[in-house]
Amino acid sequence: MSTSVTLRQSLIEEGLLSLQLPSSPANLYDPIRYMLSIGGKRMRPVLLLMGAEMFGVGNQQALAPALGIEVFHNFTLLHDDIMDKAPLRRGKATIHEKWSPDIAILSGDTMFVKSCQLMMQVPSSVMPAVMSLFFKTAMEVCEGQQLDMDFQSMPVVSIDQYLNMIRLKTAVLLGGSLGVGALIGNASADDVQHLYDFGVNLGVAFQLQDDILDVYGDAEKFGKQVGGDILANKKTFLLLTALELADGDAEIELKHWLAKDGGDDKVIAVTGIFNRLGILQRAQQKMDDLYREAMQHLDAIPVPQERKSMLRDLAMMLMQREQ
Amino acid sequence: MSTSVTLRQSLIEEGLLSLQLPSSPANLYDPIRYMLSIGGKRMRPVLLLMGAEMFGVGNQQALAPALGIEVFHNFTLLHDDIMDKAPLRRGKATIHEKWSPDIAILSGDTMFVKSCQLMMQVPSSVMPAVMSLFFKTAMEVCEGQQLDMDFQSMPVVSIDQYLNMIRLKTAVLLGGSLGVGALIGNASADDVQHLYDFGVNLGVAFQLQDDILDVYGDAEKFGKQVGGDILANKKTFLLLTALELADGDAEIELKHWLAKDGGDDKVIAVTGIFNRLGILQRAQQKMDDLYREAMQHLDAIPVPQERKSMLRDLAMMLMQREQ
Repeated sequence: MSTSVTLRQSLIEEGLLSLQLPSSPANLYDPIRYMLSIGGKRMRPVLLLMGAEMFGVGNQQALAPALGIEVFHNFTLLHDDIMDKAPLRRGKATIHEKWSPDIAILSGDTMFVKSCQLMMQVPSSVMPAVMSLFFKTAMEVCEGQQLDMDFQSMPVVSIDQYLNMIRLKTAVLLGGSLGVGALIGNASADDVQHLYDFGVNLGVAFQLQDDILDVYGDAEKFGKQVGGDILANKKTFLLLTALELADGDAEIELKHWLAKDGGDDKVIAVTGIFNRLGILQRAQQKMDDLYREAMQHLDAIPVPQERKSMLRDLAMMLMQREQ
Repeated sequence: MSTSVTLRQSLIEEGLLSLQLPSSPANLYDPIRYMLSIGGKRMRPVLLLMGAEMFGVGNQQALAPALGIEVFHNFTLLHDDIMDKAPLRRGKATIHEKWSPDIAILSGDTMFVKSCQLMMQVPSSVMPAVMSLFFKTAMEVCEGQQLDMDFQSMPVVSIDQYLNMIRLKTAVLLGGSLGVGALIGNASADDVQHLYDFGVNLGVAFQLQDDILDVYGDAEKFGKQVGGDILANKKTFLLLTALELADGDAEIELKHWLAKDGGDDKVIAVTGIFNRLGILQRAQQKMDDLYREAMQHLDAIPVPQERKSMLRDLAMMLMQREQ
């Protein structure tokens, strides 16, 4: 990570530690403290700080809403973990495992309230616009999570449906973080929109890269089992594209493997089919298109180039990651 | 119900019907439509409308935040029902039963976002104060629900702890509804506080009456089984007061029945102990004290008497209810 990122990550970590949540009821606030302490890349609040900075707002002035975005993001992770029955989050026991599902529901709700309280700590002149964008984004994140759950039991999902789902579930919160930053900096409506679109395009690209790394990543660098999505028949961009392209033998073979539980043999076979169909190239092409579109939105913002360099560097770094 | 109440209830019902929630994802929005359609007394939004009206604001101008309070209240009911594993709400299947717990969590989250969007539809001059009070209240409602859950497994709960729990879980939302109404009406800080305190005192009194009606209510009018709290060993104001007052034979007898599962015999025996200890009188005394304090706060607001008559009538009606 570059210095500009790590500096801002530290600001967020310090801010989260000094939130001064009440000690009681312990069963409500201890899970929140725990959730906020187990780390994460803090990418969303860093984007918010950088978005504000581009329009001349110092980090301290944008710190409260930046913390708000991070608390909101962790609320969604907390509730998602209940729905996914996930035992671990960042290598640590999830709240519903360590405490209980009931406590996870309620401390999640409380985190959402806390995120709103932090988000509204902006100048009152921009509060209506900031809160509107925040709530619109929150609504879309809920829709994205519902679509993700719906897709698991749907026999067919189109690539467009999938792209729309990851846009809602993941990308709009990156766009929203940048948009809130721009609003705090009194940016024009056009510039807010450009920065928002930069974030959304980058967010979708980021998620596609996740899909790619699951199959083509270096197991050690990626930090999870390569092929996990294949084993789970997860409807990723790669699988959905393969299903759309495959015919003849490839189609029969792919459906054969999808119908089977399996281990390494399944991962190797499905990866082989992906290779024959040129799926990696298609996914990278889509990612590049999104990245280019993101950059066009950043370019369109009429501030000096040096004000954009932090976000440009961050975007490039995100696209070149191996984990 | 008086005409002033039923008129405003109809406004709320119409408002809820015309919220225009999206049709898709159906698994997200259908549960919300269902939850908002199964009725309820709409007491909180009626209080908000009346609070605003006291300071000269017409019902239409306060309708959006009034709907916001009702959507928020229904969000808390939805999540509480998951935690309580309640099969029914107002005689209808609960969302986690009719759909699934995951869908209930997520559509609850979405209702919370929706409530925020409605709540912020107030003049921007009062928005910071309105949102502050709303989020503070929301936080306290979460704390109250957690304390309620904690109390179920605690061997001893004091009467003060109990009163604090019902204040947070139930009463602050009545106070908050009125407070938001007053804020929309540009009331002074003192008047907002008085109307808030009127609501909180009334809310605690209302909950105590619930405890009383469970034991001393007319089964037909009350609409639920009389003695349900006794059968469930629920830590109500009546039981906690009895535990504090009982000694000698009464104490031995009460603890004997608490250790037993039972039916009508348990209800009759415990009610008998309550009668010997004069628990009903103590509960009524506490209720009267709270009601009087509520009225003092209403009296202290310097607006013409006729502007207070709706709330005065409503409070009286709430205190004389038999269900």
